[in-house]
Amino acid sequence: MYPKSFEKLIEAYKRLPGVGQKSAERYAFSTLDWDFEDVQMMIDALTQVSTNLKKCSVCNHLSEEDLCEICKQESRDKKIICVVQTSKDVIAMEKTNEFKGTYHVLGGVINTSKGIFPEDLNIDSLIDRVENGIDEVILALDPTIDGETTSLYITSLLSNKEVNVTRLAHGLPMGGHLDYADELTLTKALQGRKKVNE
Amino acid sequence: MYPKSFEKLIEAYKRLPGVGQKSAERYAFSTLDWDFEDVQMMIDALTQVSTNLKKCSVCNHLSEEDLCEICKQESRDKKIICVVQTSKDVIAMEKTNEFKGTYHVLGGVINTSKGIFPEDLNIDSLIDRVENGIDEVILALDPTIDGETTSLYITSLLSNKEVNVTRLAHGLPMGGHLDYADELTLTKALQGRKKVNE
Repeated sequence: MYPKSFEKLIEAYKRLPGVGQKSAERYAFSTLDWDFEDVQMMIDALTQVSTNLKKCSVCNHLSEEDLCEICKQESRDKKIICVVQTSKDVIAMEKTNEFKGTYHVLGGVINTSKGIFPEDLNIDSLIDRVENGIDEVILALDPTIDGETTSLYITSLLSNKEVNVTRLAHGLPMGGHLDYADELTLTKALQGRKKVNE
Repeated sequence: MYPKSFEKLIEAYKRLPGVGQKSAERYAFSTLDWDFEDVQMMIDALTQVSTNLKKCSVCNHLSEEDLCEICKQESRDKKIICVVQTSKDVIAMEKTNEFKGTYHVLGGVINTSKGIFPEDLNIDSLIDRVENGIDEVILALDPTIDGETTSLYITSLLSNKEVNVTRLAHGLPMGGHLDYADELTLTKALQGRKKVNE
């Protein structure tokens, strides 16, 4: 018995992941309290995202143009590619301010039980990029079974190419507590231990 | 380093209650997967809600016209008013299919520590309606301290008027377990016990 437009807004919010009837109603009611400018901002953002947003033709990161902001930068080392699962991971890596190379967004990881096969991911375009002369491919996939599988798969594809393939270090997360770390993480941390004295 | 339009969409989602950076990103990414029609539906709903939606001039329920869908219905008993806090409560009551009167949405309850005083609520318009001849006012506010305070306040305002003031029964929720009920609920259930034999 809500007015039709309000029902429609609730339905729209219910399309968001993990949002049910109650949350959608809460969101819709909060939208009512927004200023007209705020609603307009959301409408503009939705319009632009649905019409302008595409994938970078080189790395598949989200972009409004043919080349993404990162691939466009002159200062980036185009000879180093960091392979990640999603655009979110690009943002996470960028926040470190440590990496000055470029990225390659796979769009997921291999998971045959979910029907995600290598051909569903942007792996071919990665191989193409490597064949055009790349110094280093850094595998930065999630340390999960699917991520490991995909890392292994890409490593095997690149085994006969002239390129260094590296992967992110595994070990204790900074700020964590040793007794909270799971055994696998501790094992990796132990195996990857580093000499600190001369 | 997300594209600007995508950042804007994340910012827009962050205005929703309880939505932080991570959830907003998740919502924004899921929006990318929507069909063009779905995005358009959301844009339409936002546009309509921000331009068309107002409060019913009689009961303050959400409405697209001067009178809400409920106040417009001929079949409704206009002599009975159910007083609720929000439009959400109207929907909850309507789901019972039990109530055939009309509503009055207060827009909240009195809470002086949060700065919500009687004059901030639609209480004056309720009194006006009662003065024009009403048989029964049903108080259906939340059974919280603020709800009780507001119920008492309205009851005192209506004490010298020719109207029956009733309130919803308190007791055990249906489908609940006795040993899970709090003491106050059990006390109310005991006090409100009903004779079942002749």
